[in-house]
Amino acid sequence: MTRPAAPDAGVAPHRWPVRVYWEDTDAGGIVYYANYLKFFERARTEWLRTLGLQQHALREATGGMFVVSAVQVRYQRPARLDDALCIETRVATLGRASIELQQRALRDDSDSVMVLCEGSVRIGWVQAPALQPARIPAAIVQALQPYVESVVES
Amino acid sequence: MTRPAAPDAGVAPHRWPVRVYWEDTDAGGIVYYANYLKFFERARTEWLRTLGLQQHALREATGGMFVVSAVQVRYQRPARLDDALCIETRVATLGRASIELQQRALRDDSDSVMVLCEGSVRIGWVQAPALQPARIPAAIVQALQPYVESVVES
Amino acid sequence: MTRPAAPDAGVAPHRWPVRVYWEDTDAGGIVYYANYLKFFERARTEWLRTLGLQQHALREATGGMFVVSAVQVRYQRPARLDDALCIETRVATLGRASIELQQRALRDDSDSVMVLCEGSVRIGWVQAPALQPARIPAAIVQALQPYVESVVES
Amino acid sequence: MTRPAAPDAGVAPHRWPVRVYWEDTDAGGIVYYANYLKFFERARTEWLRTLGLQQHALREATGGMFVVSAVQVRYQRPARLDDALCIETRVATLGRASIELQQRALRDDSDSVMVLCEGSVRIGWVQAPALQPARIPAAIVQALQPYVESVVES
Repeated sequence: MTRPAAPDAGVAPHRWPVRVYWEDTDAGGIVYYANYLKFFERARTEWLRTLGLQQHALREATGGMFVVSAVQVRYQRPARLDDALCIETRVATLGRASIELQQRALRDDSDSVMVLCEGSVRIGWVQAPALQPARIPAAIVQALQPYVESVVES
Repeated sequence: MTRPAAPDAGVAPHRWPVRVYWEDTDAGGIVYYANYLKFFERARTEWLRTLGLQQHALREATGGMFVVSAVQVRYQRPARLDDALCIETRVATLGRASIELQQRALRDDSDSVMVLCEGSVRIGWVQAPALQPARIPAAIVQALQPYVESVVES
Repeated sequence: MTRPAAPDAGVAPHRWPVRVYWEDTDAGGIVYYANYLKFFERARTEWLRTLGLQQHALREATGGMFVVSAVQVRYQRPARLDDALCIETRVATLGRASIELQQRALRDDSDSVMVLCEGSVRIGWVQAPALQPARIPAAIVQALQPYVESVVES
Repeated sequence: MTRPAAPDAGVAPHRWPVRVYWEDTDAGGIVYYANYLKFFERARTEWLRTLGLQQHALREATGGMFVVSAVQVRYQRPARLDDALCIETRVATLGRASIELQQRALRDDSDSVMVLCEGSVRIGWVQAPALQPARIPAAIVQALQPYVESVVES
């Protein structure tokens, strides 16, 4: 069962700046489509870091890690070399073994904010090295809860 | 309107081998999720090449190119260093300005074929440098038609 | 002829922070060797930006760009996921058509600064699209001069 | 002490084909400089594979792996989207704990072979996870010996 966030909950998305470098572009003169997934991952990592969660340390402490189980991205406008982007991350759903995030890349033009692409990413907790799906550790769930728009309670 | 392929059309998917190198893996010991989009792109490029379409030459000749407008991927099993994968590509829908492809990554284990991930990619034709959506050139549509499972005729 | 900087010139290197994300690591658990070249390039770009030079704008204004003509890197210690690095950049030599930079990646451990890798990168100015070597525009040379340790005067 | 190969030894370099895809290019319209290190690494991996050495299996069997300790590359001509390259790999020196390789990227034009870039890469054997330098296992040395131009005997 999914419990939507109270409409007035007003959880602000996490924001993370990303600059477009040569490495991110392709011969079409724009950011290569796969690289937005790198930007999204950086933003998720920084969002976890703001919650006190460091993935390298988590893995050493728990033997587990997050892996991506599904992504969906709609590309609307291209980004180019030197563009300054902002990646927004929201938790859509917090389940027992997985988290659904909404992420998008924005560019702040002189007088308006343009959405370059937006998508959703589902990450699941797994135990290394076999990568077996497992319950997200309680400490992580607790840290995430305030930022969640809906919680799956099954 | 979408015209499904005749059920007996039996269009075989295009297949392209991909080897997993160090560059493709991450500290989790598996292929980094964004890199499957690179594998998918290589396979699309090689599929176009089998149809006589070279993207660099196309751009010089027509001033246009394909860009990705949407992707969707479900990750089911990880790939690891040295794995030999096969990327399958099928045309799901051929429209006037865009093409919908089904792609998946397989690994051939000793006694069975494992699906590692599968997804769909929509590519649209645009005119460089402004990247304005445009009709796919007739020569390309003609080359693709035999491999298409359904054609949008609007 | 090369004129070494006065020993007391004390040009401080440019410093740029780089965080290690999943995308940067490989299955060995460390940053993949080619990715330090990405970090170095980001640092060079940000160093140029501090001098008022934006490469995308430069190319549109002048039709030229910098390309790398030689690199040399010695890898001394590995970096791992979540490490916070600092990339240092110094201009070793400023010639008419090329610039020699010294760059290195550092990690600030609790009580000491560790050099992870260090190298040199030579970049040359070329005119696009044929990429013919050309004189570095005077405005760029002027902006760089204060940061240079030696100038080739031939 | 270094024993040069007999002048008539005529050890042919290992050759590995690499196609240039969108992922490899940047907004300058050419292959991004760091990506040649990926091409070189693929070629080294395939060269080891021809000798019966699989790195993932090696690591599981011995707990060790090769890491790069130094690279040097001179970039001479650019490669572009769709170019078909060949990576040549030669063993320059085989030491007790490290190997020095000569590698270069070639493009076969209609009437001549162009060298795009060339360099040297030193790889050392280390024991994971601490990555301590160690002697290259005898089985590997034995497999490499016939392809080596000089052997360090210290």
